[in-house]
Amino acid sequence: MNKGLFITFEGPDGSGKTTVSTAVTQRLEAEGYQVRYTREPGGSNIAEEIRHIILDPKNTDMDARTEALLYAASRRQHLSDKVLPALENGIHVISDRFVDSSLAYQGCGRQIGIDEVYNINQFAIEGHMPDKTIFLQIDAETGLKRIQKGRAVLDRLDQESIEFHQRVHQGYEEILKKYADRMIIVDATKDVDEVIEQAYTIVKGLLDACESA
Amino acid sequence: MNKGLFITFEGPDGSGKTTVSTAVTQRLEAEGYQVRYTREPGGSNIAEEIRHIILDPKNTDMDARTEALLYAASRRQHLSDKVLPALENGIHVISDRFVDSSLAYQGCGRQIGIDEVYNINQFAIEGHMPDKTIFLQIDAETGLKRIQKGRAVLDRLDQESIEFHQRVHQGYEEILKKYADRMIIVDATKDVDEVIEQAYTIVKGLLDACESA
Repeated sequence: MNKGLFITFEGPDGSGKTTVSTAVTQRLEAEGYQVRYTREPGGSNIAEEIRHIILDPKNTDMDARTEALLYAASRRQHLSDKVLPALENGIHVISDRFVDSSLAYQGCGRQIGIDEVYNINQFAIEGHMPDKTIFLQIDAETGLKRIQKGRAVLDRLDQESIEFHQRVHQGYEEILKKYADRMIIVDATKDVDEVIEQAYTIVKGLLDACESA
Repeated sequence: MNKGLFITFEGPDGSGKTTVSTAVTQRLEAEGYQVRYTREPGGSNIAEEIRHIILDPKNTDMDARTEALLYAASRRQHLSDKVLPALENGIHVISDRFVDSSLAYQGCGRQIGIDEVYNINQFAIEGHMPDKTIFLQIDAETGLKRIQKGRAVLDRLDQESIEFHQRVHQGYEEILKKYADRMIIVDATKDVDEVIEQAYTIVKGLLDACESA
């Protein structure tokens, strides 16, 4: 049996990652592909408890490095509880965000540095990087307008300054260059149905190539 | 104004760290030294919430690397909330455990490796290592007998196997060699009053040297 393919969706806030990645997963499942949608903390109890600390709006005095270490801890537990067991059973995993989000948000948004954040994440994931990453590209302003319109309650990260989100955006641009081989860019400013269609076609192609290998 | 001195107490479970370090702090405070006793999470709310996840006996499926990252996160927040502000105000800090505990417990006890655990802790502490460390030396068996007698409820780490605690012990021996310049060894198998007296004399000497510098 082949191992499953590990595909992540990345992009700035408001790029439509959750909408697109869940829709793509549902279409593939309906066609009989063995595929699982997940996002951190993804139903791992320990990862869930960690995530609760990170996103609690009352924790305004959280140090940036504490935040980065907590994301890495939550990622580790979710990976070992949920992602790796699925992949080993031949199930493809579609993850809404993964390591690249920490590189962009903590590395650049919080200005810790991409390489430093990469190192603690390598401790966490021990080389289990995604096989391919669908990057939903959108400019920072359009993305932010979308989330401010779409959410009833903003969490601690949504409340960050526009400068923070611009740094995240620049971070993603750096990551796109650094991991060009892994990244597949989709224009996320288009109509959402068009974005889903394009992402679906790409992911289906990857799964077919994997299964016929 | 001089910066305060950062002194840690280390040693295996049952070596008497808490009893000895609090007694030493109280004697020094009574003599007018500006000294603060602390232990992680040490009254930092965020660090406290993190610690709660680590020690919760129901979290038996916690991955070793998740645990190491959580300790590093708690350490970072405690350091930035409590330790560094005191040191910068000229207050000496006596900490019951610090980085060396992670090297011994997660690095060796959990068999992740000292160097790997050191790296994520360097991310957390950014070079703020203790000035001196009082190491309470005791063999693993004597230490374990003491804790099993002394505690009403055992937490998740107390419940570990004898092999785990023996690896921790070996880890501390490695650390003693690696950081020989920083370590001051005290024989913790002696009567507790004698151990306190010896540790007190050492720490008082360090503070006097610091204050007259």
